[in-house]
Amino acid sequence: MIPRPASVTRRAGGFPLSGAGPITAEPGLEGVAAWLSGLIPAGGIGLWLAAGLPPEGYVLDVTARGIEIRGGSPAGVFYGAQTLRQLLPAAALRPHRTGGGPSPGPLPVPAVRIEDAPRFAWRGVLLDVARHFMPVAGVLRFIDLAAFHKLNVLHLHLTDDQGWRVEVPGWPRLTSVGARRAASMLGARVHDRYDGRPHGGFYTADDLLEIVAYAAERHVTVVPEIDMPGHMQAAIAAYPELGSGAAREVRTSWGISPHVLNVRDATLDFCRAVLDHVCTIFPSELIGIGGDECPSGEWDGPDGRARVAAEGLAGPADLQAWFTARMAEHLALRGRRVFGWDEILAGGAPAGATIAAWRGTGPAVLAARSGHDVVSCPDTSVYLDYRQSDDPGEPTPVGTLLTVADVYAFEPVPAGLTAEEEKRIIGAQANVWTEHLESERRVDYQTYPRLCAFAEATWGPRRRDLADFRARLGPHLERLDALGVNYRPPSGPRPADARPGAPGHPRDLADRLAEVRAMTANLRHGA
Amino acid sequence: MIPRPASVTRRAGGFPLSGAGPITAEPGLEGVAAWLSGLIPAGGIGLWLAAGLPPEGYVLDVTARGIEIRGGSPAGVFYGAQTLRQLLPAAALRPHRTGGGPSPGPLPVPAVRIEDAPRFAWRGVLLDVARHFMPVAGVLRFIDLAAFHKLNVLHLHLTDDQGWRVEVPGWPRLTSVGARRAASMLGARVHDRYDGRPHGGFYTADDLLEIVAYAAERHVTVVPEIDMPGHMQAAIAAYPELGSGAAREVRTSWGISPHVLNVRDATLDFCRAVLDHVCTIFPSELIGIGGDECPSGEWDGPDGRARVAAEGLAGPADLQAWFTARMAEHLALRGRRVFGWDEILAGGAPAGATIAAWRGTGPAVLAARSGHDVVSCPDTSVYLDYRQSDDPGEPTPVGTLLTVADVYAFEPVPAGLTAEEEKRIIGAQANVWTEHLESERRVDYQTYPRLCAFAEATWGPRRRDLADFRARLGPHLERLDALGVNYRPPSGPRPADARPGAPGHPRDLADRLAEVRAMTANLRHGA
Repeated sequence: MIPRPASVTRRAGGFPLSGAGPITAEPGLEGVAAWLSGLIPAGGIGLWLAAGLPPEGYVLDVTARGIEIRGGSPAGVFYGAQTLRQLLPAAALRPHRTGGGPSPGPLPVPAVRIEDAPRFAWRGVLLDVARHFMPVAGVLRFIDLAAFHKLNVLHLHLTDDQGWRVEVPGWPRLTSVGARRAASMLGARVHDRYDGRPHGGFYTADDLLEIVAYAAERHVTVVPEIDMPGHMQAAIAAYPELGSGAAREVRTSWGISPHVLNVRDATLDFCRAVLDHVCTIFPSELIGIGGDECPSGEWDGPDGRARVAAEGLAGPADLQAWFTARMAEHLALRGRRVFGWDEILAGGAPAGATIAAWRGTGPAVLAARSGHDVVSCPDTSVYLDYRQSDDPGEPTPVGTLLTVADVYAFEPVPAGLTAEEEKRIIGAQANVWTEHLESERRVDYQTYPRLCAFAEATWGPRRRDLADFRARLGPHLERLDALGVNYRPPSGPRPADARPGAPGHPRDLADRLAEVRAMTANLRHGA
Repeated sequence: MIPRPASVTRRAGGFPLSGAGPITAEPGLEGVAAWLSGLIPAGGIGLWLAAGLPPEGYVLDVTARGIEIRGGSPAGVFYGAQTLRQLLPAAALRPHRTGGGPSPGPLPVPAVRIEDAPRFAWRGVLLDVARHFMPVAGVLRFIDLAAFHKLNVLHLHLTDDQGWRVEVPGWPRLTSVGARRAASMLGARVHDRYDGRPHGGFYTADDLLEIVAYAAERHVTVVPEIDMPGHMQAAIAAYPELGSGAAREVRTSWGISPHVLNVRDATLDFCRAVLDHVCTIFPSELIGIGGDECPSGEWDGPDGRARVAAEGLAGPADLQAWFTARMAEHLALRGRRVFGWDEILAGGAPAGATIAAWRGTGPAVLAARSGHDVVSCPDTSVYLDYRQSDDPGEPTPVGTLLTVADVYAFEPVPAGLTAEEEKRIIGAQANVWTEHLESERRVDYQTYPRLCAFAEATWGPRRRDLADFRARLGPHLERLDALGVNYRPPSGPRPADARPGAPGHPRDLADRLAEVRAMTANLRHGA
């Protein structure tokens, strides 16, 4: 099973699962019962809340008499049910075969007692639907697979230089212009190749509400992100008055755009209007506002200098802090808090902001010591667009080498924190950036099986056994086969996964770590 | 509603659908009840069998007291339930919103009595997963959408020159070699452009069993097709001894390959082995063996000439008939019948074979007069890869112009048949060839809304009203939005759907019809 439960006690015998429900479920667990009974023949299953368990913890008991799942909350019961699914033969993960068609007969469930609970509260995965749009059905499937691995946060990266993916009332050009680009780069940007093919798509409010509801059924919180003040070229192409006026089209190349928001009052009002709309759709208390990779030039140009003078700021870092504070104030009016990349630590992040620490461990340490909640996501450990091997058939190899073993070895809590500070590390997330992932199959390939390793690094204990994980990964890949996941085989890339026309640009780990240290030098000085 | 029911009687008032089931369902309808209760709040719904109705017919009664669906068979009840879904607000087609999340409250169902039954027994759609592989999840979604439009056959085109998509025990190279190609053409073959990107994928037996079971839940029969003796280059690349030895790779260009099966005994045994495996997976009585577009040269080369001499045949047409008869004999041992393209009429098709008549109406007439069941699918009426308009933004425009109105005007029964012969026209199918459809979004774009028009042409009466259809299509597109379908908007292609790098090759209708007449001249002489 992946992630490995905390305690598994095998017993003799088992329970033959067969026949339709009804599941016995106490009030409050109707959602879990409905979800589960659509997936497996659920007669003989009882679902219960148990006050003594951790909120996401559960106890699963399989005896000859039946199957009982007790959870500290509906989420705990849901995780117990996910574990139950992994106790069944892999073919049972094809619900339409067990439900109808040529039935395989009763499903044998081994008798067992499992006691389990996660280490971290935030077990997340970022999906970038800006660089490549993913239709709703694909997002739902992505959520379902993440929840199967007991992750509970989807960080949905909705906007970027290369595309704006959310319809906003009153701002029609965000989607009529900003949601598509004329072409896409093929491979890493150093090669300057393009595919000559338009790309686009966006979500209506109804689409996003469906994603939120589907995720909620699976106890996944969707944290939306509107990246600002950088990564805004798509919006600026739609409404040039939001920038310097120089950006007239949605960006077709990867990398960081120089075209960023200006800091006029009207532009801040635009940001507030977008966040207001986002708040009507996403119940998440945390709302992502990005804050990463905002180059100087336009940002601290005439408008920025006027703001610096008017507000008595010292320069770009203070400008960032001032801007972030305005958004935090606005979100606070709606009972929401800021979720931002660790760049917002420069100049001081707003109280209550949660930091996605992606540039090594330094920002995580700084943020925790400054009293911020931290989600660890260092690029060299959990950026799943990075290359999985040095096999020449690896599609578009970018970033540093990041094998399954590397992800498995990831420790979300950096060294050097006090016990009190360590509590600020609320979890971690793996980030699936999609510059080079133009299809669900490519997303599958980069995500799995590394997200399996990541799931165990956030659910399981600090001390883990790679050999034990590898032994469990074999049967788990049969589950992924049944779920139709185009994972990367341990033996290497399948020939059809190669992308010779989209060459990569591999990086060296030491070189990248030095770069990250240099990028975060301002944080160390500021701390 | 689409397809338009035969009779709709509106009444005053309605029924507010709310609350979970249970659905009242008589024995035999558990499957429909389980399917429906996963989609809508189904309390107050009763499902019944009614002996007096046609097998696929139904009566749907909505009153203030509840909703009753009576069907001539479970399929009829299923279609009644599909009609019920179309009576609900479009948002109800997002089951996760109505099931969980921010609930929209009770769903208003207008009081109505609907009596309905289809005109044709075969309401099919072909999906070509050979030219572009579609992952299982995509195929399931394709089936679900077809069933929503009350289609009941999926003709699954599993093999072709450009890829072999079904794992066959004992023949591992069919998938290790035959399931992928080194590159794909970009656009029509006259341009000779390639994308330089490998493409591949295949289905395991478990994958196909899941597809079959999912389809069965939706009362869709999956008719598999292994195209032979032409369209076999992928298999021959895997096992050169099946051909002339000249084809060493899976075809990367579109069009008809010269590399076809030889007619040695071992090659016929290969075909039988593949069909045996297919029969273990697909319960369909009809099994597709292709028979189309087999060029001379290799087919009637040394092996063929030896067969011609040994069997006393006159030439290629008789060779085709002899080969098809061997496959028919073999399928008959398993209680199956041949489903083949109209080329197998040349030289005489086996008794009991069903003919997919694609080259104009001539072959349909010939087949019906010869006592064969016929599925009408003339390319200039129902080949959905053909271009939808002459808009310059239309992606990869190929074939003849085939608008929604053209498809709507399609009449499956050709003129000139007697009443008895007309009964041989068991229905029709729309064919989604995927040379130019590399993604589900592209498949959506070519398929919808033309498949809506096709559904009405096979479900509804011979005399139909285009203006009435267009009026109903508007609200129906909102349903397709809720279902996440990337249909072609009536106003023209969305900019992001354009494919300037994959140019098409439009054809003129008169020119194509003349070509079709020439292609089928041998049939007229043979008749």
